[in-house]
Amino acid sequence: MHLVAIGGSDAGISAALRARELDPSVDVTVVVADRYPNFSICGIPYYFSGDVQPWQSLAHRTAADLETTGMSLRLDTLATGIDVAGRRLTVRTSAGETEQIAYDELMVGTGALPSYAGIAGLDQLGPHDGVHVLHSMGDTFALDRHLDERDPKTAIIIGAGYVGLEMAEGLTGRGIRVTQLQRGPEVLSTLDPELASLVHAEVAEHGVEVLTGTTVEAVTKTDSGLAVVGSRNGEPFTQTADLVLAVVGVRPNTQLLEAAGATLGAGRAVVVDEGMRTGLPHVYAAGDGVVTHHRLLGVTYLPLGTTAHKQGRVAGENAIGGDARFAGSVGTQVVKVFDLVAARTGLREHEASAAGYSPVSSTAVADDHKRYYPGAQPITIRITGDERDGRLLGAQLVGRLGTETAKRVDTYATALFAGLTVEQVSDLDLSYTPPLGSPWDAVQIATQQWSRETAGVRA
Amino acid sequence: MHLVAIGGSDAGISAALRARELDPSVDVTVVVADRYPNFSICGIPYYFSGDVQPWQSLAHRTAADLETTGMSLRLDTLATGIDVAGRRLTVRTSAGETEQIAYDELMVGTGALPSYAGIAGLDQLGPHDGVHVLHSMGDTFALDRHLDERDPKTAIIIGAGYVGLEMAEGLTGRGIRVTQLQRGPEVLSTLDPELASLVHAEVAEHGVEVLTGTTVEAVTKTDSGLAVVGSRNGEPFTQTADLVLAVVGVRPNTQLLEAAGATLGAGRAVVVDEGMRTGLPHVYAAGDGVVTHHRLLGVTYLPLGTTAHKQGRVAGENAIGGDARFAGSVGTQVVKVFDLVAARTGLREHEASAAGYSPVSSTAVADDHKRYYPGAQPITIRITGDERDGRLLGAQLVGRLGTETAKRVDTYATALFAGLTVEQVSDLDLSYTPPLGSPWDAVQIATQQWSRETAGVRA
Repeated sequence: MHLVAIGGSDAGISAALRARELDPSVDVTVVVADRYPNFSICGIPYYFSGDVQPWQSLAHRTAADLETTGMSLRLDTLATGIDVAGRRLTVRTSAGETEQIAYDELMVGTGALPSYAGIAGLDQLGPHDGVHVLHSMGDTFALDRHLDERDPKTAIIIGAGYVGLEMAEGLTGRGIRVTQLQRGPEVLSTLDPELASLVHAEVAEHGVEVLTGTTVEAVTKTDSGLAVVGSRNGEPFTQTADLVLAVVGVRPNTQLLEAAGATLGAGRAVVVDEGMRTGLPHVYAAGDGVVTHHRLLGVTYLPLGTTAHKQGRVAGENAIGGDARFAGSVGTQVVKVFDLVAARTGLREHEASAAGYSPVSSTAVADDHKRYYPGAQPITIRITGDERDGRLLGAQLVGRLGTETAKRVDTYATALFAGLTVEQVSDLDLSYTPPLGSPWDAVQIATQQWSRETAGVRA
Repeated sequence: MHLVAIGGSDAGISAALRARELDPSVDVTVVVADRYPNFSICGIPYYFSGDVQPWQSLAHRTAADLETTGMSLRLDTLATGIDVAGRRLTVRTSAGETEQIAYDELMVGTGALPSYAGIAGLDQLGPHDGVHVLHSMGDTFALDRHLDERDPKTAIIIGAGYVGLEMAEGLTGRGIRVTQLQRGPEVLSTLDPELASLVHAEVAEHGVEVLTGTTVEAVTKTDSGLAVVGSRNGEPFTQTADLVLAVVGVRPNTQLLEAAGATLGAGRAVVVDEGMRTGLPHVYAAGDGVVTHHRLLGVTYLPLGTTAHKQGRVAGENAIGGDARFAGSVGTQVVKVFDLVAARTGLREHEASAAGYSPVSSTAVADDHKRYYPGAQPITIRITGDERDGRLLGAQLVGRLGTETAKRVDTYATALFAGLTVEQVSDLDLSYTPPLGSPWDAVQIATQQWSRETAGVRA
């Protein structure tokens, strides 16, 4: 049995590891487009902030670690075609040669590509022009070289999502004056503006110029630097900088599977079932290139590293004859932005409404631990529940670093996974000691507030 | 409608607050034996460590705060008898007078009393002798006076449970040489010795002399101070100190309800149903004096502040005509000991076996966040699950302060509440960002380890 995994990131490596773990007699080959298998893409901003050095430490495992598990790595090798009937993969080697790799089972983890969000110039300008994306180690090295060799004083970051905010912190920490452009009315559009505004205040306080309501139409090279052109609150907008970083989301990288006959679904990602089967015989797929089974939404597209790990593991198990199922995402996400932590799980109101729920929300502010014990800090928590049956639909949290906000969101994530109601969260037996919590944890102060505020509208 | 609550601690105050919140037309009187309603007993060790000053800040709410909600407080008033048929409570006022208080509904939250664990002398010696317990503000003031006026150099703490360990930290921080005596083979007998030994090492490293395997038989006054006498690992044991603090657990304070005809059950606590009804007409009870409905054990006795809050709230709601139910404890507990956090939820193996489960356990050590990001620290996690159906039965965690261990235990607590299997915990969609977690959170590294280690024995 020969399992071939395409992709050296979370999904591909997870599949390969799982297969080797379950059956060490299986031959596993991982085809990796670059030289950097199993790198933590989520860690790249911390390389630029200087928190993580050298870049090699960003590897979850080294190539040698991976090979010790018994898998073979084909680095610098680009998968270019799948012969589904013949169970053969065509690849182009670093030497430019075309080869065929025979497989019994194939797992495709080609991930996603940076989106350009329709911004003119992003497809033509590149690192040599001072225009960057940040999705691979190659992108990392290019940006790093730019910083080292050209010492930019000013940067424009297009996008204020997770990576954009983390990079605003990273570049600010290196003394670069950062302007951050966001199309929507508030940064971090994955949170309600009420909570995201706390993140906005945090980055602004650290010297980042945040311009919300700014639609970027084009990036061009001018004599005075790179010009970002668009409109802001209905007025024409132009700003120049030495460096432009575009981090406006991703799109699934589906070319290989599309050409092989796979179906596209939500978010134009490849359709897979919960066992990560593409429907093409002997072809599995996982990660940022495939649709996401979501416990509250059904099938959607929500690419996250945690999900890619889980899906890859399922694919690896099933490819060698198992019958694992991806249990589903609930959309849990967290980001550290300077000294703030912002997290969410489940659905916000507009997402819940679109999915047929009847959401109502409330916002509470509760201390992370007993106020009498030194260092207590407020956490802002927004709860969304269904007014018909009281089911918990989502939670958003913003608290300072050190408030255990990142793991408090996990309590809600677990409750969502289990289908608990908001009131059942109030009933949970959570831990308490004065330095680290309250008899009713902040998590429950928020759900109790929801119960009080929504009592009038609930069935 | 006149609701009378006996007890100024968690259960009594929670009941009173809930009744007033739900129906502001209800008259509520709280009968409080001392002058300190709604004090956070769990916070007392932090008063001695100096973290919390002045003692008044230990109040969850001041008497004035409480009265603002519309409840009446009868301070320094001891309930001495319940006339169930006549719905009258007999009390003794601070002036020594006997009064009757008529009620429509009664909620008894008399809590627990310090246990002496059969140690001779503890019932005779008191604060004036240098022998202390720590269960009320009165005990707090007595110990405080002792420290101020007699400046003890050495202390023996009998017991190495939560309060004992917190007080070892508190007294050590004041320059007192502390010897801590523990009957069992390891400190913190609520954890498996494998994990508790980490706590032992932490207190020892901070200069506390920990003597496990030490059974105390008596405390006596001698010319050279207080002598603690017993046996240690089969040999006679004697040690003297300037101060003795006995914190060897509690026993339910049931005298009042017993005399009124209530039934005693688990742990010799008062039997109540999940609605906190004692079976005596119009008499509810909650808190450390009553049995605990436990989601995995059925009815047991497990007094905890968090539980008292929840039970009191249920009692307050039901006393004024509601139909709330206490959803049940899963035994979640956490303690900070110097720079370590130790937590547990659910059952350990011997508890699970006794309750008819078929427990198997495994221990993992996992970083709190990605190792490449500065400050990563290991968390030791022991998982217990049922080998027959894979159900999660319990989790124990020990990690350093700052590792979000206190809220990681809550993920397991939520999973236990919902009846998830160990493998479902591995499937949870938990939050991840490199500074605060891993793609598979430490919580899941531990459950995956359990799955691997126990695969051979499971059905």
